[in-house]
Amino acid sequence: MRQKHIDLPADQQITQWYNVIADIPNGVEPPLDPATGQPIGPDKMGAIFPMGLLEQEMSTERWIGIPEEILDIWQIWRPAPLIRATFLEEALKTKAKIYYKYEGVSPSGSHKTNSAVAQAYYNKQEGVKRLATETGAGQWGCALSFAAQKFGIDCKVYMVRVSYDQKPYRKVMMNTYGAEIVASPSPDTPTGREILASDPDTPGSLGIAISEALEDTVSREDTKYALGSVLNHVCLHQSVIGLEAKKQLEMVGDYPDVVIGFCGGGSNFAGLAAPFVPDKLAGRQIRLLGVEPTSCPTLTKGRFAYDFGDVSQRTPLLYMYTLGHNFIPSGIHAGGLRYHGMAPVISALMRENLMEAIALQQLECFEAGALFARTEGIIPAPESSHAIRAAIIEATREPDKPQTILFNLSGHGLLDLSSYEKYFAGQLVNYALPDEAIIKATCNLPVINR
Amino acid sequence: MRQKHIDLPADQQITQWYNVIADIPNGVEPPLDPATGQPIGPDKMGAIFPMGLLEQEMSTERWIGIPEEILDIWQIWRPAPLIRATFLEEALKTKAKIYYKYEGVSPSGSHKTNSAVAQAYYNKQEGVKRLATETGAGQWGCALSFAAQKFGIDCKVYMVRVSYDQKPYRKVMMNTYGAEIVASPSPDTPTGREILASDPDTPGSLGIAISEALEDTVSREDTKYALGSVLNHVCLHQSVIGLEAKKQLEMVGDYPDVVIGFCGGGSNFAGLAAPFVPDKLAGRQIRLLGVEPTSCPTLTKGRFAYDFGDVSQRTPLLYMYTLGHNFIPSGIHAGGLRYHGMAPVISALMRENLMEAIALQQLECFEAGALFARTEGIIPAPESSHAIRAAIIEATREPDKPQTILFNLSGHGLLDLSSYEKYFAGQLVNYALPDEAIIKATCNLPVINR
Repeated sequence: MRQKHIDLPADQQITQWYNVIADIPNGVEPPLDPATGQPIGPDKMGAIFPMGLLEQEMSTERWIGIPEEILDIWQIWRPAPLIRATFLEEALKTKAKIYYKYEGVSPSGSHKTNSAVAQAYYNKQEGVKRLATETGAGQWGCALSFAAQKFGIDCKVYMVRVSYDQKPYRKVMMNTYGAEIVASPSPDTPTGREILASDPDTPGSLGIAISEALEDTVSREDTKYALGSVLNHVCLHQSVIGLEAKKQLEMVGDYPDVVIGFCGGGSNFAGLAAPFVPDKLAGRQIRLLGVEPTSCPTLTKGRFAYDFGDVSQRTPLLYMYTLGHNFIPSGIHAGGLRYHGMAPVISALMRENLMEAIALQQLECFEAGALFARTEGIIPAPESSHAIRAAIIEATREPDKPQTILFNLSGHGLLDLSSYEKYFAGQLVNYALPDEAIIKATCNLPVINR
Repeated sequence: MRQKHIDLPADQQITQWYNVIADIPNGVEPPLDPATGQPIGPDKMGAIFPMGLLEQEMSTERWIGIPEEILDIWQIWRPAPLIRATFLEEALKTKAKIYYKYEGVSPSGSHKTNSAVAQAYYNKQEGVKRLATETGAGQWGCALSFAAQKFGIDCKVYMVRVSYDQKPYRKVMMNTYGAEIVASPSPDTPTGREILASDPDTPGSLGIAISEALEDTVSREDTKYALGSVLNHVCLHQSVIGLEAKKQLEMVGDYPDVVIGFCGGGSNFAGLAAPFVPDKLAGRQIRLLGVEPTSCPTLTKGRFAYDFGDVSQRTPLLYMYTLGHNFIPSGIHAGGLRYHGMAPVISALMRENLMEAIALQQLECFEAGALFARTEGIIPAPESSHAIRAAIIEATREPDKPQTILFNLSGHGLLDLSSYEKYFAGQLVNYALPDEAIIKATCNLPVINR
């Protein structure tokens, strides 16, 4: 019988993270202090992150060991299965082999849990008592709530309002893990109060929620900040996904022609794709394909420039593809993709032509998600459906071409079922590409072009 | 590092079901035709079930091969992981080793999917176009919706009203898989209309929903009926759980002192525990412990007698522990445990003293579920929390006793989060044991005592 479910044996467990920065030609530009325009030192960053994570953020080491306590917790769901989408292949009448790495087996239901556990661990090492964070669709907030609980750390989550309203079970999940959660913009911070005063019905955005979590952090002695994507150390933690997937494909004698992941802040794509970069640099034929929504087309329509990570200009300047830190994307249901910037690591891979990107519409992605549910059974998160749609496009462009496609099914959509309900009821719409003028307008002053 | 996550290698996959009936001393009594009081023949049963399943229902063969098409679909999530609950052990300060078999990795989120795929397969083999079924908490309805979709069969689900209202995402999940769903009692059947007329606010029950699904079935040529528990063939299909768990424990050189599963209709418990029965019969020291809710204490307070499986007396008479087919349990949130009867297989194991049973209260089980979520990360279904509470009781009674506990974590509670919300808000209550007089009154005429 054909093998569909590929488990990595326990003795093959990944014990080192892969840091792609060591292999990116010309490296990754450092974050800048907006006050001076100079690279920001660990002293200033130390106010919001523990040193253990800052060391990883700055590291150019290729391999970084994973502490045992992290591996121990990861074992609840790792190694995660690699599954061949045989039923989807049949439905598509394609000769392509489609594999998906399934990260939805984690307790909070997505790949985010990988980095959440690592971040909580390094904060705990340095005696941090409380973490503040933001969450878009809710996946990151749930992941950090779980991880903080594991290490006995308090956790406060600022959740983008549009997702907070769309996904009420997310709040219950975070509460179950013992976290405090509030819709963002919230009355709990100056930025939140200001935005609520001028636009009480705003759907919010990741940029606003990040500002609130940062304000919370710097206003308290006992609190540090945690970010679920974008930064180098988050991309590093997620490398376990691609490292496992490579080994699992090896077990069945296969290797991908194309590797696909959605790009929100970038850690999902980096997690799966980065471990394949050395092969590509060595001349192996392999395409790395990032997928984003047309309503927030950072890689395909943004500018490569220094920009803030948040709306109230509290973060260091990051050198990245950006739509401008004031850009508020349409309220698509893939809330995790509504971010104006892109991980510097991913941005550098784009610059070096080591990856490519496409932007997809909301409805075609929900359609792909529903097809996936009816063939492979798993109901995907709306974010993950972007990768599925891209895999379908690749598999059906030349259906007779024997090729191997690998994508990351980053999470299940069981807490996104209200979005599926609206999709089936015909209540969801596509959004036009943001006007170039709007993007330019939102990329005002503080964006520094190199 | 200690091994927490135990995957069964693909080449160790279970390919035969274990039929415990072959090993139960004095066997299992046959179902009776209520009209004649004589064992019912396959001719009458053939109106509602396909012959492939009826053969399994009547079989006394010890091992029955699993068709490749079923194994192929099972591979989406099987072999399911066995996980050692190291973090729960630490929280309990126990020397017991606690293992859980995790069935929540299936697409619909519970063990029910195992039998659903098998039942849809055998119906498809015989050309069945449509399936009607009932569901309590919704786990079975979702599982059958998925399985029917996989084989191109239409599916109609009657869902017990109290759960239908408590768990709105269940409906969306079934719709996502292409099924039709209605709250039971419904206006779609004579029994449903009759009950609605006399008691418009009834919470419904599994007994009522079964009646409706059966009426639907016999009113249409193209439809057969599918049951998610109770019957021999369902218990048979679930034996894969215990067979895998045994092999996985062997991989780490362990064997359980006590095996724990909740008992709703019985297939969950039978699935995990039955494969250990031969060892017990051979003299091995092992306890098999079934857990039920105090609000529906079938094994601990019911009578062992012939009774109907449904409220409108449409099923054959089954020889089983029963609270009477008119018994309507309190509206606990573990909807899957609200059934008046118990699988004849389980009932026979009780009679032969091959297992034991306890009844637990709603609140202590939610408390156990929340502790489990905060230690092991997975938020359990309210049904599964009964097994967790029992495991905690066993592990803490003599915390210094080195022993091995195995329980089935039959499903996650991600679509039960509204129940957790009510629990955390202090809105859930315990229910008193049903009065003996009420049980006797509901066990009226048609119950035949042997």
